[in-house]
Amino acid sequence: MVKNKQVLLKDYVSGSPKESDFIIATDKKTSLEVPESSDNGPANSTFEDGFSHYTPGSPINGYAVSKVLDSKHPKFKKGDLVWGITGWEEYSLIAEPDSLFKIEHTDIPLSYYTGLLGMPGMTAYVGFYEVCKPKKGEKVFISAAAGAVGQLVGQFAKLAGCYVVGSAGSKAKIDLLKNKFGFDDAFNYKEEQDLDAALKRYFPEGIDIYFENVGGKTLDATLLNMKVHSRIAVCGMISQYNLDKPEGIHNLASVLYKRIRMEGFVVKEYYHLYPKFLDLVLPYIRKNKITYVEDIAEGLENGPAALVGLFSGRNVGKQVLVVARE
Amino acid sequence: MVKNKQVLLKDYVSGSPKESDFIIATDKKTSLEVPESSDNGPANSTFEDGFSHYTPGSPINGYAVSKVLDSKHPKFKKGDLVWGITGWEEYSLIAEPDSLFKIEHTDIPLSYYTGLLGMPGMTAYVGFYEVCKPKKGEKVFISAAAGAVGQLVGQFAKLAGCYVVGSAGSKAKIDLLKNKFGFDDAFNYKEEQDLDAALKRYFPEGIDIYFENVGGKTLDATLLNMKVHSRIAVCGMISQYNLDKPEGIHNLASVLYKRIRMEGFVVKEYYHLYPKFLDLVLPYIRKNKITYVEDIAEGLENGPAALVGLFSGRNVGKQVLVVARE
Repeated sequence: MVKNKQVLLKDYVSGSPKESDFIIATDKKTSLEVPESSDNGPANSTFEDGFSHYTPGSPINGYAVSKVLDSKHPKFKKGDLVWGITGWEEYSLIAEPDSLFKIEHTDIPLSYYTGLLGMPGMTAYVGFYEVCKPKKGEKVFISAAAGAVGQLVGQFAKLAGCYVVGSAGSKAKIDLLKNKFGFDDAFNYKEEQDLDAALKRYFPEGIDIYFENVGGKTLDATLLNMKVHSRIAVCGMISQYNLDKPEGIHNLASVLYKRIRMEGFVVKEYYHLYPKFLDLVLPYIRKNKITYVEDIAEGLENGPAALVGLFSGRNVGKQVLVVARE
Repeated sequence: MVKNKQVLLKDYVSGSPKESDFIIATDKKTSLEVPESSDNGPANSTFEDGFSHYTPGSPINGYAVSKVLDSKHPKFKKGDLVWGITGWEEYSLIAEPDSLFKIEHTDIPLSYYTGLLGMPGMTAYVGFYEVCKPKKGEKVFISAAAGAVGQLVGQFAKLAGCYVVGSAGSKAKIDLLKNKFGFDDAFNYKEEQDLDAALKRYFPEGIDIYFENVGGKTLDATLLNMKVHSRIAVCGMISQYNLDKPEGIHNLASVLYKRIRMEGFVVKEYYHLYPKFLDLVLPYIRKNKITYVEDIAEGLENGPAALVGLFSGRNVGKQVLVVARE
């Protein structure tokens, strides 16, 4: 039995979370051996789903890299490194080991398996390649482009021979997109009075692929700039999650006029493609063809602040929290 | 040279058209022979596109059945019956004969080629089969279900083994849907205070396929009732066309949460499938497995009133205008 530091929610959260919604608990004791029978429930929540289905008083969940300390599952043995959903705590008992991926390639920084080689990387891959089916020369727009997923979609799009413009909410992020991630262009949506006019400036001939992360006004303006037979992969609508009433979208008739295909997706339905994804991405990483930026916070106790920062866009790149170092 | 009665627009129309926007002209003279060279522009407007690109003073266009009086095109000869876009006039010079379809099966009433066997029939076929890819047992919701397209989508869906509910705007239409077209159920949206509650009553387990003809509040309520991996074929948004500002759609996040595929389509991009469509539908018609209702007005001069009636939903079934009888 060991002490197990945890991040818990005090109560149900409505609206965006605040640091005061969380508790750092240090009184939990956890066994480092798997019990003969476990009645833990399934752990398949992620931050993206919002907080409504978390049980106050239990640790929140998230994607993490972990080391196996004990296992009764044939796929995993002591010492294996894995990535997947675990609790925000030092030690987790995994009720559904099949949901975890064994890490086979350790020449890549382990933290990348929370991002580039984990859920966000697969999300970018699935949304861009599987949902949008890009063609060389197509024009791609990405909102929240400096986030964990957006930065990768942009780089995949450049590698696929597309023209890529991203939007983000700070000068630092715009600089990253243009100077580090190789986007053809980028703009700060907070500095644009008229998003429709901004998009017409960057896409005078219209947009073939919109990778949608934000919803609301950006979606509405983008609909006016989509080309015939264009595609919208709906990955997120972060501007809308915590509103009492979502904003109205007025330009949906474009879906008809331009014969747009708009499709929502969740990465968990595509994990069978993970080996195909690795085949594509590992060579790019090893040849330095992909740039990946992390915003690293240290220590479980700083997790709530890091999480809250996501909702105000404070992070630059993928937010990672270091719980322990190998 | 013969006198050629025509329906013209006086001026550009904003908002829904009124009878006073039209003129019946009888002073035009038309040659019944094709001139050696024609500089007529292409005629590819339809009512569904709105009126903004009609030139005042020239006849409006629509789908019609016509008899060829003269032809220099190898595909057509004098006496052939054809369907496709022509002017609202007694005699039309066709600038793009390749846009017309020769009528091969004359055991079917000719007027059906403006509907069941013409553009509306193909639209129902394409939107339901090609866009939505239905499976037996799926739950299908159709708005404007008593219209030319909706009544056919519902019957295709029943023939495909689906559960089908339609909405429409009058008691007469609801009766038709339930008692003539074989829908499992139907409701009058004008009598429902709460469309979301109505849909939950008819689809307690949710909707797999929504065939969208109206947009606005109906779309917004339907989004809340779509199942995971459901599909929305966007065929029309007639409630929104003539508004100064379209209504806001607030429930688009369902596209993400339910992984909905929403896709706009226009039938003209699928006409290469017309033979496949005939192979499916002709046997159904000959075996009386499909019911088809027309709302017939007589004479070109009654065209404007019939057209205006579409915008208030006055017609029951496919609105047809008889210009001449064979």
